[in-house]
Amino acid sequence: MSEHKTVAIVGGSGYAGGEFLRLALGHPNLKVTQVTSERSAGLPVSMVHPNLRGRTNLKFIKAGALEDADIVVLALPHNSAAKRIVEFEAKGRVIVDLSADFRLKDPEVYRATYGEDHPTPEKLGEWVYGNPELHREELRGATRIACAGCFATSVILALYPLIKLGVLLPRDVVATGLVGSSAAGASASDSSHHPERAGSLRVYKAVGHRHTAEAQQELPGNFPLHLTAISTPLVRGILTTAHAWIPDGYSDRDVWSAYREVYGNEPFIRIVKVAKGIHRYPDPMLLDGTNYCDIGFEMDVDTGRVVLMSAIDNLVKGTAGHALQCLNIAHGWEETLGLEFAGLHPA
Amino acid sequence: MSEHKTVAIVGGSGYAGGEFLRLALGHPNLKVTQVTSERSAGLPVSMVHPNLRGRTNLKFIKAGALEDADIVVLALPHNSAAKRIVEFEAKGRVIVDLSADFRLKDPEVYRATYGEDHPTPEKLGEWVYGNPELHREELRGATRIACAGCFATSVILALYPLIKLGVLLPRDVVATGLVGSSAAGASASDSSHHPERAGSLRVYKAVGHRHTAEAQQELPGNFPLHLTAISTPLVRGILTTAHAWIPDGYSDRDVWSAYREVYGNEPFIRIVKVAKGIHRYPDPMLLDGTNYCDIGFEMDVDTGRVVLMSAIDNLVKGTAGHALQCLNIAHGWEETLGLEFAGLHPA
Amino acid sequence: MSEHKTVAIVGGSGYAGGEFLRLALGHPNLKVTQVTSERSAGLPVSMVHPNLRGRTNLKFIKAGALEDADIVVLALPHNSAAKRIVEFEAKGRVIVDLSADFRLKDPEVYRATYGEDHPTPEKLGEWVYGNPELHREELRGATRIACAGCFATSVILALYPLIKLGVLLPRDVVATGLVGSSAAGASASDSSHHPERAGSLRVYKAVGHRHTAEAQQELPGNFPLHLTAISTPLVRGILTTAHAWIPDGYSDRDVWSAYREVYGNEPFIRIVKVAKGIHRYPDPMLLDGTNYCDIGFEMDVDTGRVVLMSAIDNLVKGTAGHALQCLNIAHGWEETLGLEFAGLHPA
Amino acid sequence: MSEHKTVAIVGGSGYAGGEFLRLALGHPNLKVTQVTSERSAGLPVSMVHPNLRGRTNLKFIKAGALEDADIVVLALPHNSAAKRIVEFEAKGRVIVDLSADFRLKDPEVYRATYGEDHPTPEKLGEWVYGNPELHREELRGATRIACAGCFATSVILALYPLIKLGVLLPRDVVATGLVGSSAAGASASDSSHHPERAGSLRVYKAVGHRHTAEAQQELPGNFPLHLTAISTPLVRGILTTAHAWIPDGYSDRDVWSAYREVYGNEPFIRIVKVAKGIHRYPDPMLLDGTNYCDIGFEMDVDTGRVVLMSAIDNLVKGTAGHALQCLNIAHGWEETLGLEFAGLHPA
Repeated sequence: MSEHKTVAIVGGSGYAGGEFLRLALGHPNLKVTQVTSERSAGLPVSMVHPNLRGRTNLKFIKAGALEDADIVVLALPHNSAAKRIVEFEAKGRVIVDLSADFRLKDPEVYRATYGEDHPTPEKLGEWVYGNPELHREELRGATRIACAGCFATSVILALYPLIKLGVLLPRDVVATGLVGSSAAGASASDSSHHPERAGSLRVYKAVGHRHTAEAQQELPGNFPLHLTAISTPLVRGILTTAHAWIPDGYSDRDVWSAYREVYGNEPFIRIVKVAKGIHRYPDPMLLDGTNYCDIGFEMDVDTGRVVLMSAIDNLVKGTAGHALQCLNIAHGWEETLGLEFAGLHPA
Repeated sequence: MSEHKTVAIVGGSGYAGGEFLRLALGHPNLKVTQVTSERSAGLPVSMVHPNLRGRTNLKFIKAGALEDADIVVLALPHNSAAKRIVEFEAKGRVIVDLSADFRLKDPEVYRATYGEDHPTPEKLGEWVYGNPELHREELRGATRIACAGCFATSVILALYPLIKLGVLLPRDVVATGLVGSSAAGASASDSSHHPERAGSLRVYKAVGHRHTAEAQQELPGNFPLHLTAISTPLVRGILTTAHAWIPDGYSDRDVWSAYREVYGNEPFIRIVKVAKGIHRYPDPMLLDGTNYCDIGFEMDVDTGRVVLMSAIDNLVKGTAGHALQCLNIAHGWEETLGLEFAGLHPA
Repeated sequence: MSEHKTVAIVGGSGYAGGEFLRLALGHPNLKVTQVTSERSAGLPVSMVHPNLRGRTNLKFIKAGALEDADIVVLALPHNSAAKRIVEFEAKGRVIVDLSADFRLKDPEVYRATYGEDHPTPEKLGEWVYGNPELHREELRGATRIACAGCFATSVILALYPLIKLGVLLPRDVVATGLVGSSAAGASASDSSHHPERAGSLRVYKAVGHRHTAEAQQELPGNFPLHLTAISTPLVRGILTTAHAWIPDGYSDRDVWSAYREVYGNEPFIRIVKVAKGIHRYPDPMLLDGTNYCDIGFEMDVDTGRVVLMSAIDNLVKGTAGHALQCLNIAHGWEETLGLEFAGLHPA
Repeated sequence: MSEHKTVAIVGGSGYAGGEFLRLALGHPNLKVTQVTSERSAGLPVSMVHPNLRGRTNLKFIKAGALEDADIVVLALPHNSAAKRIVEFEAKGRVIVDLSADFRLKDPEVYRATYGEDHPTPEKLGEWVYGNPELHREELRGATRIACAGCFATSVILALYPLIKLGVLLPRDVVATGLVGSSAAGASASDSSHHPERAGSLRVYKAVGHRHTAEAQQELPGNFPLHLTAISTPLVRGILTTAHAWIPDGYSDRDVWSAYREVYGNEPFIRIVKVAKGIHRYPDPMLLDGTNYCDIGFEMDVDTGRVVLMSAIDNLVKGTAGHALQCLNIAHGWEETLGLEFAGLHPA
């Protein structure tokens, strides 16, 4: 007998909410009952997410009309979910938040990062950081899941095995994220205006990226982490390179073994390091719509530096797919359920 | 009890073969047993189609090592399949050809179109033109399926309801296809060199496009059909506009009714004509990886001209997905099996 | 002795005004004295047009602070220039309007096209339609220049020789314009949002394009003209194909001769029709920043149909460069002055 | 009295040679007399560089037909110029080499970098490294100019002021270059095939980039320099970010002053660091066709880390324009001659 859960999506007119909706509609155990949007209430969801034409007859409702559901997915702007969390907790047993509101454990770090006090600091401890590769056991049966940030995920998954195996030296790690335009959301702005963006490479956060805090939380260790984010002409995708230092004598093969050891059984991590051909390293081009995080690396044996590379679709493994993977674990379902899409080539 | 069929793909290193492979790997009733490539024999298929990493351990074999399979899919260059068709017929009961070799019924038309005699004209009558919307009944139980051409499909599906309902006037129809770069195949060439193509709009066939012949075969009537094909910076996708004339007095609503009447039950055709918003008409952007053909139109009531628009992914509804839909029908399976992907937004 | 003229640009924060500013700054006989922008008054023009960093210290002023200049260039939204034309006429002897306000000679056609009465119909006769190839003699000494529309220019220049030589048959002409995103202007909107536009091909005007009126005005004859406009992922550029019918017996060579006869001495028209290679026809990719209109064609000798192709940069030959060419003629200067840029390859 | 010099371009069918040709045709003091291409000998240069249609009637010749010229520009593949340098020296007084053959002073470094002995090590001392910002005085009257590498130029110009002012600390510098597809040259390859490149972000050199050697030569100091190069969907352009460490207490304003002090009079360097708007930092989008290097930075005051950013057009400031600037200096001409193009916005 199959087990069905109802899902309500709050803030479903943005890209993250729309992507979760797409995935949930294709998930055998989920039934989407409501999708809210203040701006588009009354319109068919397929008007805003035209890929869903013929897939659903749902219409947006206002959040005020939200009814109970087994699972409530919050796809609101940052700092909106926390302020209304009690309201949402009354609607569903399981809450998934796609925003940054509940990712950080330490209210002080939250304040330093987001520039204001957390509205419900006492609740931060209830939430699991939504990253299956690091927190799978905590996710089983979890009812509060704070989905990890997209750039943070690409950084964390690239570096985690070095941390876990204790080989990351306490030296500066420089990570550069190349990011597609969908990461900035569905609202038109001057910086997203096609003529200004189509041929552009633009550093949008040179220092002080907010995801630094969650990456440091998840990657304990005595190493300074420096994140720089650059916008690219891609729509979806993040490619992150991270320069890290490991002890002398580590070979390419040693690093390979380390990543195999840590990630060998992960359903959504692929180690991509091929000797020849044009697809030797991770490339977000191949990941649109998929939940994969592809990870590669190259050793600079003379200096003990390893250049790590990770690629994800920011809206899937970076947001909605990652969240669904967490939900699958939380409910004890097959972890890949609803996340089977292989990706396209060419794309 | 589920029914499984084995599939062998001949010529699997190109984009069409690779796309069929991707779809077949996700199809519950198909089991891909062999994939041939003379150039890449011995390599894992995921080396050439890196989206399939972790999805299959198949390696390319040479065609000479081909063994029997229930279904043989031919993804060879035009004019290669027909010359060796007896060889392939010995390997499988059902043959699907993705090339142009068996699409035309009339050997004379074939010669006029392709500039040489057909090698096995006596066999042309055995093949069903692989278009479910026009030939569903013939496809049931079919064992020879000649998959329709991609540009031809976009033209045929746009115009077919006017033909079927007898309202297309005998005047010139001008159809313009805007085509992505994947339609030219997987081999690098001067015209596909990224610096020469990325920002380019280039007419590559102003007059005399070969798909004219199959479009005319499938769209009987006394109207001259003029096809022009233009390459665009998209990778996947065809957007076709076709200017056709219908009798005075036909309103926008009449045309809508006509298309609903003909396509109302089609699982992969969506009529897209929305009064407002930015997604008012078909757009190939939304169709990457899907088997949809989206069709829209606009009436010029003063002149009786209707501007039809159709969008497809050239590799899916234009090739491999269309072929799989035909196979589903041929085997009596659910028509949408393995073709459920909804497409991405944004993309 | 060089002759200098002062120029004021009204509405200089948009793309058309910015492009005229770029060209004027590089013109040896022009001195830009003022640039207005209500929204950006007080800011350096290089803040809005960052390509001009280090090229000018001009700051935007409000239109109310406009002083006299030899030439006033109006780069305002459609229907703004005409309403204030008396005000602008008081500021300068020569007025160039980049909008549609003064292009049409007939107030009735204006009303039918733009949906309202022209505010100053009595002045329409004073303006020269700003197209040097058709109106060079009228432009000499002209003081009112209504710069031609960008899509209209690509259509007019493609068809004009057939009209001039009297060989265009009175049959339907279908013209399709593929247009870059800069043609929609500098203001962000849902349709220009990068994630929605980057991979898109979208018909934005299937029937009833407003440029039909000016194209018909400039191309007298008894042929119905049908314009369809499609947005593409390019930023700059228009590629237009036009299907026209000419008498039986006309060969490819005849058409070539006709175009050579009409355009042989034109400094900015190149006939592009090459037997081999990848650059056989016009391609807007090659024209970014240039004032060229490249024109090519292909004959369908069986039907007497000629497929014409024209490519321009919508902001240069489509707007600001075209206007500057007109100004050069009006002042008796070398026609190519300030318009020498060759364009880039690759681009 | 104007002074004219004749120029012969050896290897003119590639992108570097074609770009030099474009610039030289627009230079008032240069007259291009010959352009060689073994592959395209006999064809008009505009067949290969279609932007030059109507600009020149030159045809490619074979290198064997090379005659004397005042200036010989070598645009050959790496390691081709040095092997035939005596032959070319006999043809012209001034030799400009666009390849890497004469950039390195130390034959040992050359061997370590390029994997073979330099064919004419005794000549290395005769060449000036072609970077005006560092070697302007040496370039005056120079007759052997080894044009700097494109990625190297972006790294060198970003870091040079810190070196010159002695504030760069001896810590690891991580520099990441995002590179357009034209940097890989004009020959089609699997990696440049449009469907594989258009949506791709691909690390192509994670460690051991060859330009490290010339950057280290030009940036003396005790700091390890790590270069990573990533291919992007741009055609032209390099955006480099470099993470460098400077002493505690340096403020944003101090760094600004340092860059102003060193580059304040440079005609082709612009310091781009704007407090608001979307064009706050360097962006290669704005530089297509220009000789600018735009440089920006952001301080991480807590750590003393400065994130430097530099943007160039790899074919202009990265190659042909840089070379022409050197030639202008060598001949005592105005340094900006022939390099006046401002760049486009939008682009």
